Amino acid sequence: METKLKPIGVIRTPYTNKPPHQPEPDAEGEFYIELNPEFAEGLHKLESYTYVYVLFHLDRTTRPVKLLVTPPWAAGVQVGLFASRSPHRPNPIGLSIVRLKDIDGNRLDITGIDAMDRTPLLDIKPYVRSLDCKNDANDGWRHERR
Amino acid sequence: METKLKPIGVIRTPYTNKPPHQPEPDAEGEFYIELNPEFAEGLHKLESYTYVYVLFHLDRTTRPVKLLVTPPWAAGVQVGLFASRSPHRPNPIGLSIVRLKDIDGNRLDITGIDAMDRTPLLDIKPYVRSLDCKNDANDGWRHERR
Repeated sequence: METKLKPIGVIRTPYTNKPPHQPEPDAEGEFYIELNPEFAEGLHKLESYTYVYVLFHLDRTTRPVKLLVTPPWAAGVQVGLFASRSPHRPNPIGLSIVRLKDIDGNRLDITGIDAMDRTPLLDIKPYVRSLDCKNDANDGWRHERR
Repeated sequence: METKLKPIGVIRTPYTNKPPHQPEPDAEGEFYIELNPEFAEGLHKLESYTYVYVLFHLDRTTRPVKLLVTPPWAAGVQVGLFASRSPHRPNPIGLSIVRLKDIDGNRLDITGIDAMDRTPLLDIKPYVRSLDCKNDANDGWRHERR
């Protein structure tokens, strides 16, 4: 069984060559989402949230999927693909958390996101602090790298 | 442009009729992920994480997508689809955070997840506390409902 995804908008960023490995909340430049106008009504009350999840199509990844990867900032460490945030995944879905700065019609101004300019948007979900902020979580194997 | 998604495993839960609206960490019964064996190597070092994101195909949703919704636990409140976690979305991708209890080969034992039994798995990503736990986030419009 296969599922087809359809872009519902586009993510605009200053990154035309290479995005950073993670969202950079203080990155300079314009970061915004243009939701297709026919979906704008679905943003009602979203402005009450500080943060949102952005799901997007990692459409610029060209490398083949490898099950063991070395994150670019962690030379010498080999981890499983599912223990990494590598964009080269069996299903190319990107997931980032960004701060919502403003909503105007179908445009959402956000803080820095780790996506190439004109990345296809798949979904926006509210980041709910009481559900999503796990204070007893850890940084896993990354902890050793600090 | 369309993207095709392919299941990389299956989520097993006790829910054959209706899942809860959110993951229930203390739910009784067996909750586990069967990753397709050919991807098992990609789990290397994942056991170092407390929590993981599970992305899945909301394949049992039959209702049409509506841009304004009333969450079942919030009678009388109408919010935009993107300000809700409704499963009836333009792109049927579910996102849940669960605690990782054990990994054995290609099987991951997890805490309660809000997915129907045999839901197709799309991705597993590590939940990284320093990136994903936003202590300055809020509960948005839900806050008023408390």
